[in-house]
Order: sequence, then C-alpha cells, then structure tokens
Amino acid sequence: MTRLRCEISMSLDGFVAGPNPTLEEPLGVGGNLLHEWAFAAASWRESHGLEGGERNADSEVIEESLRTTGAVVMGRRMFSGGEGPWEPDPRAEGWWGDNPPFHVPVFVLTHHARQTLVMEGDTSFHFVTDGIEAALEQAKAAAGNQDVLLSGGASVVQQYLKAGLLDELQIHVAPVLLGDGTSLFDRLEIDPLGLEVTRVIASPSVTHLRFRVPARTT
Amino acid sequence: MTRLRCEISMSLDGFVAGPNPTLEEPLGVGGNLLHEWAFAAASWRESHGLEGGERNADSEVIEESLRTTGAVVMGRRMFSGGEGPWEPDPRAEGWWGDNPPFHVPVFVLTHHARQTLVMEGDTSFHFVTDGIEAALEQAKAAAGNQDVLLSGGASVVQQYLKAGLLDELQIHVAPVLLGDGTSLFDRLEIDPLGLEVTRVIASPSVTHLRFRVPARTT
Repeated sequence: MTRLRCEISMSLDGFVAGPNPTLEEPLGVGGNLLHEWAFAAASWRESHGLEGGERNADSEVIEESLRTTGAVVMGRRMFSGGEGPWEPDPRAEGWWGDNPPFHVPVFVLTHHARQTLVMEGDTSFHFVTDGIEAALEQAKAAAGNQDVLLSGGASVVQQYLKAGLLDELQIHVAPVLLGDGTSLFDRLEIDPLGLEVTRVIASPSVTHLRFRVPARTT
Repeated sequence: MTRLRCEISMSLDGFVAGPNPTLEEPLGVGGNLLHEWAFAAASWRESHGLEGGERNADSEVIEESLRTTGAVVMGRRMFSGGEGPWEPDPRAEGWWGDNPPFHVPVFVLTHHARQTLVMEGDTSFHFVTDGIEAALEQAKAAAGNQDVLLSGGASVVQQYLKAGLLDELQIHVAPVLLGDGTSLFDRLEIDPLGLEVTRVIASPSVTHLRFRVPARTT
C-alpha cells in the first residue's frame, strides 16, 4: 500500500530553515548547514546532475528515498519561495532549473490554479488547489506501488500530521543550532503522540531518525 | 579538566516538559513520556532507591552519567517548581524526598538566598544567588576531577549555552510529539553554531545524541 513519508532535515533546535529567507538565500541564514550532509553525498549530487560526492551511509539514505518515491507533495513556498498569484513570482518554474532533482510527478499545494509544468528528466509539477487530501490522493494515484514523499515545508508537514495522514517521518538531525528560523513542528497543539522508532542511522554529519506515525482518531 | 555537560530528555518536537505543569504533574501534560526510557532503566531506579529495571544501553548511559558527575547545577524551577521567596514554596526541599537521586552537591540557581540543605545519601543543595558563572565556579570546585552536570531546566540551559560555558550536550530524544510545552532551545537568537557529533546510541525507547559544543567568541 502506498504510504505518505515525510523526510526533512532539521537543526537540533528544530528549524528547517534559518531566519530571513530571501530569493538569494532561500534557506535563510545558516539554512545551508542543514543540508551539508546531503550536498556531500554521491546520490544527492547524481539526482541534481552533479558529479562526485561520497558513497557513504548518508548517500544510501538518499538513494533509498529516491528508489522508493513514486510522487512528491510539497508546499508552494518550498516550490518557489513566493506566495499569491503566479505571474509576478520570479521562481514560478521552481528553484531547480530545467531538470529538477525529483524525476517523478510533484504535487504543489497552492491557492492559485495553473497548468501542469512538464520539465526534463521525468519531473512534472502539478498544482493542486483543493487541499491536502486531494493532493495526497492525486500523488498516491501517480506513485503506483511506490511511496509518496512529503518534502516540506514546515507548514505543510504540520497540516498532514494534524490531519493524521502521515505514515512515516524521517528527520535528518543536523548537528547545528540555528538559533532562529522556521520551526518544523512549532507548537502543534495536539495531544501527546507517541511514535515508533523504526531506524536510526548515524554519521558524523547527521543522524537519520525514522519513525512510524501511529494511526490516530482525532 | 572539569567540563560542563548538559544532559536532558527532549521530545522530537523540542520540549523538555509538556504544557500546564502543576504540583501534581510537574512535567506538564505528557511530560512523563519523555522519561519512560529512564524509568525503565536499572541504573535510574537504583539511584532513586528503587529495585528492578533493565540493564540495557539506556541504563548504561545513565550509569555513565552518574559515574562521571561530581556536582550538579539546576534552576530553581527544576528544584521546586516554584518561584519567589522560599517560605510559601510547598516543594522548598525539592521534589525528591529525604534521599534525592543526585548523591553529589547540587547548586540551585535562585534569586532568594538560603542555607545549604544537607540531605541523605550525600546529596546537598547549595543555593546560589550571584548568577550562572558563580554557580558553575562553585560546582567545578565541588566536582573535583569529575564533570559538572547541568540538568535543566530549559531557561538555565539556554543561559549557559548563550554564555558559551557549555562543553558538552547530550540530548535524549524521546519518540514522542508533545505538541506544546517548555521548549528546550526556543529561539536562542544566536549565530548558527555547528556542533560536533561525538556519539549516538539508539534504543527503541530513546536516541541519545551527544555533541561537543565548540568554544565561542561572542
């Protein structure tokens, strides 16, 4: 059965982006420090059309994610950094150039309808305006018997968590305190929710904590 | 050289206590879920004068901490849950009864001076009114060639971190989302601070992430 998996890099103090994100520095001040482990990994570089990188445990975690992901869901801000109508959005085709690193259909949550955007390398961006459940349904249909990857940002992760739609959560804990920024979980204001640890992989650059999220009745 | 080590249990969403702490439920709603791994460990039970428990990796982490700790620093709220003058504080002798689980000198940060409290089992509570540096200095002197353990709460940890006085940080990440409560790091509003991962120990109940905190010039 197709599952919804969230995988995201977080600082030890809980941020998925630093403060003051801009078009030049979309991850905010220090935000790149969350992803250094990925930038150094061969599998990440390969998916981004880059050469080199290390074939280590971190690279395997990314490789596994790419191999098991049949579709991606993300928020509008993660896609372009913008908000509101698309016309004035300088990153209306996303951050990633002509050949984005996803190589599967990507479903972008937005309030502003637009045509599907077909990119090189089997990535297509589908814009979903009727909410998180509709986006998940479309992504599941597109994923076949692979998983749907929820890649962020924080607000979208919170929405899927609160709706009880998330099956698995893998947090890549980066060894850094950002001090401020976008908090992944913020204050969810849910009842305490126990998770099941299903795997921990540690390297000097990052700790990958994987959890099963139990079904909830809310 | 005597180091200052912080060891604290934190939920995946960054809380060291749940919301609405009371005298009856000092860890707030769901806060006990942060410490279940410890309650089940033989070494924790032993230090609390209880029998039973498991001799597992988690128990060894606690055993190591007890063995290497020569003095403890904590905040007033962690000591008694109260604030202000001592007279009306119903937990003015601490939470732990006649034989507290520390078995070394404990330095309690407070704005309200009082005499040292000598308990059974080699625990003594020393009340320090002249700030975090003075408390650390006194604790270091008492610790001999062992470490000083900074055991919380969040506000005190933040103060030592911001002052650049912390040498080591061990976070016991409990597999639970509390949804609200006392945030360990909150928004420190420091420049991004890279940490060095020195050890990761994982069990089904908790992941122990240990970091060296680099020296800072602030």
